[in-house]
Amino acid sequence: MACVGHIQQGLWRHPRDQATQYNTLEYWTGMARTLERGLFDGLFLADVLGVYDVYGNSPDAAIREAAQVPLLDPMLLVPAMAAATQHLGFGITCNLAYETPYLFARRVSTLDHLTGGRAGWNIVTGYLDSAARAMGLAAQMAHDDRYDLADEYMELVYALWEGSWADDACAAGAAMGAYADPARIRRVRHEGPQYRLDAIHLVEPSPQRTPVLFQAGASDRGRRFAARHAECVFVNGGPKPGVAALVADLRRQAAARPLCIMVGATLVVGRTEAEARDKLEDYRRHASVEGALAHASASLGIDFARYGMDEPVQAGPTQAIQSNVDAMARQAGPTWTKRKLIDQFVLGSRQPPIVGSAEQVADALMGWVTDADVDGFNLSRTVAPECLEDVIELVVPILQERGVYKRAYAPGTYREKLFGAGPLLAPPHPAAAHRQVAEHANAAG
Amino acid sequence: MACVGHIQQGLWRHPRDQATQYNTLEYWTGMARTLERGLFDGLFLADVLGVYDVYGNSPDAAIREAAQVPLLDPMLLVPAMAAATQHLGFGITCNLAYETPYLFARRVSTLDHLTGGRAGWNIVTGYLDSAARAMGLAAQMAHDDRYDLADEYMELVYALWEGSWADDACAAGAAMGAYADPARIRRVRHEGPQYRLDAIHLVEPSPQRTPVLFQAGASDRGRRFAARHAECVFVNGGPKPGVAALVADLRRQAAARPLCIMVGATLVVGRTEAEARDKLEDYRRHASVEGALAHASASLGIDFARYGMDEPVQAGPTQAIQSNVDAMARQAGPTWTKRKLIDQFVLGSRQPPIVGSAEQVADALMGWVTDADVDGFNLSRTVAPECLEDVIELVVPILQERGVYKRAYAPGTYREKLFGAGPLLAPPHPAAAHRQVAEHANAAG
Repeated sequence: MACVGHIQQGLWRHPRDQATQYNTLEYWTGMARTLERGLFDGLFLADVLGVYDVYGNSPDAAIREAAQVPLLDPMLLVPAMAAATQHLGFGITCNLAYETPYLFARRVSTLDHLTGGRAGWNIVTGYLDSAARAMGLAAQMAHDDRYDLADEYMELVYALWEGSWADDACAAGAAMGAYADPARIRRVRHEGPQYRLDAIHLVEPSPQRTPVLFQAGASDRGRRFAARHAECVFVNGGPKPGVAALVADLRRQAAARPLCIMVGATLVVGRTEAEARDKLEDYRRHASVEGALAHASASLGIDFARYGMDEPVQAGPTQAIQSNVDAMARQAGPTWTKRKLIDQFVLGSRQPPIVGSAEQVADALMGWVTDADVDGFNLSRTVAPECLEDVIELVVPILQERGVYKRAYAPGTYREKLFGAGPLLAPPHPAAAHRQVAEHANAAG
Repeated sequence: MACVGHIQQGLWRHPRDQATQYNTLEYWTGMARTLERGLFDGLFLADVLGVYDVYGNSPDAAIREAAQVPLLDPMLLVPAMAAATQHLGFGITCNLAYETPYLFARRVSTLDHLTGGRAGWNIVTGYLDSAARAMGLAAQMAHDDRYDLADEYMELVYALWEGSWADDACAAGAAMGAYADPARIRRVRHEGPQYRLDAIHLVEPSPQRTPVLFQAGASDRGRRFAARHAECVFVNGGPKPGVAALVADLRRQAAARPLCIMVGATLVVGRTEAEARDKLEDYRRHASVEGALAHASASLGIDFARYGMDEPVQAGPTQAIQSNVDAMARQAGPTWTKRKLIDQFVLGSRQPPIVGSAEQVADALMGWVTDADVDGFNLSRTVAPECLEDVIELVVPILQERGVYKRAYAPGTYREKLFGAGPLLAPPHPAAAHRQVAEHANAAG
């Protein structure tokens, strides 16, 4: 995330952490080069459009702890990182609720062109009332309504990306001495409950047209959305049987479509187990309970500043991240308390790290694949960039040795690298249907 | 402009022109390095949000001639160009009418951070009905109403950039072991006729806070807006007395504030006058009348496809670029025709090139400074990048010799380089007033 403190709150205070350089290009191009050296598939940047102000009904704790504030626009980091790399993909979170479809579609197409087909979009609909207020609204839309809005939005951007310019619009134009053939460019006309649009897409087809689509919604409605639209799905860690059930449900709902499912993980690796334990102790001296409470209050929709340590927490319905609330209630039991929450914090968040020697960490990762049927991992940073270097230098070679990690990048776009197919989305993905229309649009003029 | 055909329509067909590489990072980083080698102050990227569909009531001509379509998002080119340079400034056009102030302010602050204070914004309010339709509106706002909207928008983004975080918010935070001191960050609350917002700015202060502000409105209302907000003003070429009067009026209205006024110019330079004339003939073989008509129809709000060559043109009131219409009517006289318009096209636009040996071009540029009191030039490309290399290799050394062109970049941000003052805007610029409020905001909490 393009900020100082991301998930593991407080670790930016560690003397070797470089996250306070988040506002320089060098920090990001260095990170991208490191990941490409480690043959990572992609770099994923999360985003939120508001501040965490549920805790104590104020953003003060988040500001003090730099818990995702200040926060830059993540999309603008990509072009410089793309220029510094050749293969690394980029997954960028963008909240569709506050972006005009026409302009957003152009931004994404621009990124896909400039990166040579390495753009990915993590589709989110937001969960913060503070973001809604920043946009001039009294509060955000209700949880399930946001997904209805998102479904309409997706059809609209698919129409722009896939349905406006035929594949051969420029080639046919060149054959007649023009740049593009207007007969092979279709105007997109849309009048829906939430959006209206009447325009051709401003950008000629990019390598992937639709970027690789990521999604992380784990609620019932969120999974239905993911099963329809997402190619890659992020799931939170937690007890493996729960994750395995979630993964099975996602795959069942996506039916014929392959999904690349990545589980969130935080790794603390040493050359030996003892070294890893020492590293954990060193890191956790900087973990921030206040930052973690500010973050958890916002994502659970519960103001923990109002609770004593052992007072039962009332987790009623919330417009926040529904799956987080459900998961917390499941883990903590019917009566849970702030103390139980804080006990879960290890490195400044509820996401517990996997700690061990390189062999142990490799075992744990492979265990996730076997036991929960995930395809990969969304690693969150601890002390950066050393946490990435540790993985690349210590864990990757072992995984390669075991034949479960690539030794070189596959050719092609981000989609081709991830799925061995592409560069365009194929049926039955709903985006592909818009392309069919375009290919037959000429007769209609 | 992040497109194939910009102002001089059709020249992308010249065998040495590289504009069809517009969708690669290499094209842009190469251009930026070339400009920095030539000690250019900045690279300016124009933008429009719709297609030119006034001519023949269709976008077909613009599409065939690649007249500003396809068109990428210009902002996304900047981070890669910034990573490839150290001093070059970046002026980016963004139409405020379709951008949420809160998100736009974050984008610009992000750019100013990543470029180390080299961000500039060309404020436009749009002039195309096709853009409005793309956004789901029936038509755009009326000309003068767009400027009223813009005035409100400016106050809002000033409040975010200048008024939310105190200069020492992070330093004061560090002194107390925090990242930032919440008491030194002010929530911006705004309820105006067009916008509502209630939020802190998501980004800590960037080197310039408010980017260098550019504007090009030359109508009466546009000049009033420019005189209040702009630091740099683009004016079109044309007969010098008219430009001189416009420049004098802008300076009078801006009163105590210095303005950097740049006149649009297209240069065709040779080592000798004969070589320049030959180059012009070579270039103009590729100039596109159809592309120029499509562009002129949109910017004048007149469909020239409906006119015979010698039929009098009815230039009634328009929501397009008012100053263009006025200028055309002035130049062509009370009855003007399509033939008179086409006669003005030399290289595929109404902007006539300055053609000559390096000495002659240097004389012409200095004549503009003397006669019209401009500070500099906004050069549009012909056959790129060779047109820039010609200027840098042939004209710049002569201007340096004559003591009117720098021999090295000044230190500091874009604003400091241009004005020798900064990095922040100073009174009486309206942005500075918001900063004063922030500095005294602590007592109010």
